[in-house]
Amino acid sequence: MERPRHQGMAKNTYMRWRLPLVCLLWEVAMIVLFGVFVRFGAEADAHWEEEKREMNLTSDIENDFYFRYPSFQDVHVMIFVGFGFLMTFLKRYGFGAVGFNFLLAAFGIQWALLMQGWFHSFKNGKILIGVENLINADFCVGSVCIAFGAILGKTSPIQLLVMTLFQVTLFSVNEYILLNLLHVKDAGGSMTIHTFGAYFGLTVTRVLYRPNLEQSKDKQGSVYHSDLFAMIGTLYLWMYWPSFNSAISDHGDAQHRSAINTYCSLAACVLTTMAFSSMLQKKGKLDMVHIQNATLAGGVAVGTSAEMMLTPYGSLIVGSISGIVSTVGYVYFTPFLESRLHIQDTCGIHNLHAMPGLIGGIVGAITAAAATEDVYGKEGFIKAFDFTGVYRTRTPSIQGGFQAAGIVVSLLMAFAGGAIVGGILKLPIWGDAAAENCFEDDVYWEVPEDEESDVYHMHSPDKPASP
Amino acid sequence: MERPRHQGMAKNTYMRWRLPLVCLLWEVAMIVLFGVFVRFGAEADAHWEEEKREMNLTSDIENDFYFRYPSFQDVHVMIFVGFGFLMTFLKRYGFGAVGFNFLLAAFGIQWALLMQGWFHSFKNGKILIGVENLINADFCVGSVCIAFGAILGKTSPIQLLVMTLFQVTLFSVNEYILLNLLHVKDAGGSMTIHTFGAYFGLTVTRVLYRPNLEQSKDKQGSVYHSDLFAMIGTLYLWMYWPSFNSAISDHGDAQHRSAINTYCSLAACVLTTMAFSSMLQKKGKLDMVHIQNATLAGGVAVGTSAEMMLTPYGSLIVGSISGIVSTVGYVYFTPFLESRLHIQDTCGIHNLHAMPGLIGGIVGAITAAAATEDVYGKEGFIKAFDFTGVYRTRTPSIQGGFQAAGIVVSLLMAFAGGAIVGGILKLPIWGDAAAENCFEDDVYWEVPEDEESDVYHMHSPDKPASP
Amino acid sequence: MERPRHQGMAKNTYMRWRLPLVCLLWEVAMIVLFGVFVRFGAEADAHWEEEKREMNLTSDIENDFYFRYPSFQDVHVMIFVGFGFLMTFLKRYGFGAVGFNFLLAAFGIQWALLMQGWFHSFKNGKILIGVENLINADFCVGSVCIAFGAILGKTSPIQLLVMTLFQVTLFSVNEYILLNLLHVKDAGGSMTIHTFGAYFGLTVTRVLYRPNLEQSKDKQGSVYHSDLFAMIGTLYLWMYWPSFNSAISDHGDAQHRSAINTYCSLAACVLTTMAFSSMLQKKGKLDMVHIQNATLAGGVAVGTSAEMMLTPYGSLIVGSISGIVSTVGYVYFTPFLESRLHIQDTCGIHNLHAMPGLIGGIVGAITAAAATEDVYGKEGFIKAFDFTGVYRTRTPSIQGGFQAAGIVVSLLMAFAGGAIVGGILKLPIWGDAAAENCFEDDVYWEVPEDEESDVYHMHSPDKPASP
Repeated sequence: MERPRHQGMAKNTYMRWRLPLVCLLWEVAMIVLFGVFVRFGAEADAHWEEEKREMNLTSDIENDFYFRYPSFQDVHVMIFVGFGFLMTFLKRYGFGAVGFNFLLAAFGIQWALLMQGWFHSFKNGKILIGVENLINADFCVGSVCIAFGAILGKTSPIQLLVMTLFQVTLFSVNEYILLNLLHVKDAGGSMTIHTFGAYFGLTVTRVLYRPNLEQSKDKQGSVYHSDLFAMIGTLYLWMYWPSFNSAISDHGDAQHRSAINTYCSLAACVLTTMAFSSMLQKKGKLDMVHIQNATLAGGVAVGTSAEMMLTPYGSLIVGSISGIVSTVGYVYFTPFLESRLHIQDTCGIHNLHAMPGLIGGIVGAITAAAATEDVYGKEGFIKAFDFTGVYRTRTPSIQGGFQAAGIVVSLLMAFAGGAIVGGILKLPIWGDAAAENCFEDDVYWEVPEDEESDVYHMHSPDKPASP
Repeated sequence: MERPRHQGMAKNTYMRWRLPLVCLLWEVAMIVLFGVFVRFGAEADAHWEEEKREMNLTSDIENDFYFRYPSFQDVHVMIFVGFGFLMTFLKRYGFGAVGFNFLLAAFGIQWALLMQGWFHSFKNGKILIGVENLINADFCVGSVCIAFGAILGKTSPIQLLVMTLFQVTLFSVNEYILLNLLHVKDAGGSMTIHTFGAYFGLTVTRVLYRPNLEQSKDKQGSVYHSDLFAMIGTLYLWMYWPSFNSAISDHGDAQHRSAINTYCSLAACVLTTMAFSSMLQKKGKLDMVHIQNATLAGGVAVGTSAEMMLTPYGSLIVGSISGIVSTVGYVYFTPFLESRLHIQDTCGIHNLHAMPGLIGGIVGAITAAAATEDVYGKEGFIKAFDFTGVYRTRTPSIQGGFQAAGIVVSLLMAFAGGAIVGGILKLPIWGDAAAENCFEDDVYWEVPEDEESDVYHMHSPDKPASP
Repeated sequence: MERPRHQGMAKNTYMRWRLPLVCLLWEVAMIVLFGVFVRFGAEADAHWEEEKREMNLTSDIENDFYFRYPSFQDVHVMIFVGFGFLMTFLKRYGFGAVGFNFLLAAFGIQWALLMQGWFHSFKNGKILIGVENLINADFCVGSVCIAFGAILGKTSPIQLLVMTLFQVTLFSVNEYILLNLLHVKDAGGSMTIHTFGAYFGLTVTRVLYRPNLEQSKDKQGSVYHSDLFAMIGTLYLWMYWPSFNSAISDHGDAQHRSAINTYCSLAACVLTTMAFSSMLQKKGKLDMVHIQNATLAGGVAVGTSAEMMLTPYGSLIVGSISGIVSTVGYVYFTPFLESRLHIQDTCGIHNLHAMPGLIGGIVGAITAAAATEDVYGKEGFIKAFDFTGVYRTRTPSIQGGFQAAGIVVSLLMAFAGGAIVGGILKLPIWGDAAAENCFEDDVYWEVPEDEESDVYHMHSPDKPASP
């Protein structure tokens, strides 16, 4: 298998000056903007002793750090190992999967701290950050990792950095509209992260449609060990999803409840995924693509409602349905999207994030609309939906309506944003590879000569065998 | 290496309708039972604000979530990544190891929430769950993962689901007898999880004895990278075992002490394992099988006593001994069990869980019997052993006797249960593979054509070389 | 590829009696010393109920366990999976990387509990341990893992155990001088862990210089999947580094701040590493060696200052610079060190730990010297630098001077200690391999025959092809 060395002919993928320029330019911009705007929040500032006195706190354990840091670390693992390794399933794109995910996420969290900070943590001209900001930055970047899944293997690292810049910006605007203007609940991000991120990515990949992609079809599959690497990603996403959905919920019962609902939903999702994976295949064998992806749909689908009184059996139902929808999606929708709508979705994010994200938004709207003071308790009801201040007259059914509006806004933002950003990424200056070199690490990475390759070389006519 | 395609001849391993049917049937049952029985416990319910007032709690940090959630997540990783990847050492059974473990554990935790809930969290007709229930469900499933280790590679996914159903049931009964009737301490589960799970699995594999298993002997080994995948499992089990043994201990000193004892025991275990691995091999080389498994025996062997005042040096002694016993077991007992007793134990759970589990039970009994008010303090003594209510007159030596009785009960339950369940699994309806197709993912999984395979194909007479 | 079987000719690498002897001797010593000295600290002892009353604590959540245990587990993962897998990049030394790291760390933490205990937790003739001691033991061992990186592939397990014994001892002395005598702040260990560990390891590898190492040059590279295994190590180190730098900081704002600073520094470091990795390579391609290592320099470089008011933008600057320095080091310094100074640094710890460690020490000194009561608040200022008791008259600039002195002391201890220990390891009794067998697991491990090897065997003249 002489790896292709002629990518330079069709397209210029030479990164030597362009990639460093973009990386350094943006890092310098981050430093300047952080210097002007970002400071420690009260709970991370050395003035905390005074703060404690003012807030009448008797113990350091009341610092938000201890409520959220364990969840933060779990979310952090999901973004970098979870998404990174989930995408290593391709036989020759492991470096790009885990490495570019690393790059875009590392940039994205910095830019997200700024964007989300301006919207949510801006006081007296400064963005004051704490552990909750770190979680939210990771969340925001999660939506970029999702979009990355659609274009995996077909873009240059510069394109990914450009996309991250715009997507984080749009994410923050969309999030602001939902959380602040519509006063919508979405702690686990079914709408803001999954629906937005997935439809954004799908729109981008539609704009970047490559008619000749079948030229690299042989590299779009997995090999045995790449499937096992991908399972590392799958399992870390699956295991830590309860932390994801509960990370920024209110202290106490809400965090507790989010974790339980998510745990239940994910457990159910595994069984229906396995059932349909076997059922939809002639030989009745299980397909690793489904196990790696559809088992996670249950986490996406309770992202909005997990902190509500969805109840454990409600979670089982939602998880079961989302596993079925997602698996069916991989078998029937993905080929349809590609052949009819020209949407080339490398990782099948439509099945893992888009559809389950929509389910999540809808379940959230219904659960909110069905809320009663009886189920939540008088105080719990107000606290769960923040029915205070100008929102103190909102009823559950009105809240349900706003939740539904949140889905629509997220979709519109995703389509419009994805179309614009896709257009920008289509410019012929970003160094993406030709169709025949897609899904191939060799284009952007120094790749070691494997022993396997040596074996191939033995048989190549122009190289002597090395025994 | 043309992989065998003739498994259908000897046995019918076609899963298309059977596996989906079982998965869906059981998931529907779970939904119905959860709907009837399972609700949020007080600390996860939206009424928590009222609860806080009643319990006179001043801060949300008093919610059990913050005491146990980090440990829960560590335990969760042990069950899904730890056990899952530990079993990927086989060269062609990585999908089955990590995938079937995923399937059985995802079903098992749901069923365990119900079974354990009926026994321990049942109030006014409802099972009220919180983070401690999630941990206990994971624990219960841990015993199934252990049993899976004995039959790894030799059973169909349906058999595993059937076994899980029965084993979780029996586990819960046994646990109820030990914890509630005998009033035994076993926070890390030396008896309830390891002894029970391992002897159950060994009995099952004895009943399922396959006389012709040497037909797939070539697939029972590892390859270089599968051994590295397995080390991921080993290390996560090893690192997070302090969380496992402390996860459901009493708040405060007991959790703290459990983690320290386990940390010490595991550290010592590594050294004696390495020593005996080298010593028992003619060429003096280390064996990955020992490193992957026997290094963990130290965690098993302090499962009962970790929350007691075992002391750090006591832990070192227990860990050292269990590493030796386990390594010796791999070298001498496993071949003996297979050739003489017809117990085919794929992962050597007899060495990693059965013997160290017994050690753990015995050490627990001795440590309990040796407890004094001087060492524990008057209050600490009562708290550590729950010598309250009807048990307020129990003495340490009587407690030690009950602890010992717990070992015996666990063994009896394991043997009886394993024999019955083994008999059920022997029925010729579950779709297990023929002996020559054991330890081979191709039977139940879509397996990608690897590059290595391509190489082989080059040399196979009936296929043209693809250069 | 017939693997070399003639290592016995040049050197005696037979471990059968030597390795067990050393392991068992040292474990027995640990048991005896633990028996004499180590007991539970107050927060892990069953007398905790009385302790709580005396300390006027109203809740178990005030137990230090809940402040530090999540961070401890993250640090634990960094030591065993992080360092272990980071070093699996070599194509045929994965077992040694992860296995020997496991061995030396498991021994090291026991010895560190004693050594650090005598210096810091010794009361009434006993070492009283709690979760903070476990973290510190892991930290101490971290410095040994770093040194291991320099000599990876070139030493026997016995040499590693001997080195661990001495290095832990010297580490503890150095740490005592810095923290207690110089009253220096170094929560994340830029000086005590990284500077000391790296220069110690570099000195050892200098003393052990092997002039004929190019004989095993073909094994010093990676293969495709070994690079992915290494990325597991990289990412876990990267993700959990905020826990590393904050694990033993003061409760409250200091822990919170350390995590934020480290998060920022690491994010910036990824971008400059990617930039320079591409820029310094003719073809502009990214090099996995840089991505695996230099991206972590940002964590090292804020090790001292993370708990100070470094500010987020300060962290971005430090992280950016350290990524550049580290990447440049891999490209230019490592070859220079090897060819001119005869320092053979397998993992390039000079670039990842030594230089960034120095940066970290210097940044810490500057940040301390620049501290003002205005920035920290009156109380925060005193608390951050422990300007109490005999140190209550210390000014920031004096503190900065002492911080700088801490760097010098660490360097001197590393050079002197490394020279002595290197001399000891040079004795021809420890069973290290000949130059042509370096970086080869086969010397000390039972290695499975891989399918790839079978392929080679097909072509080897003396073996029949097995089709």
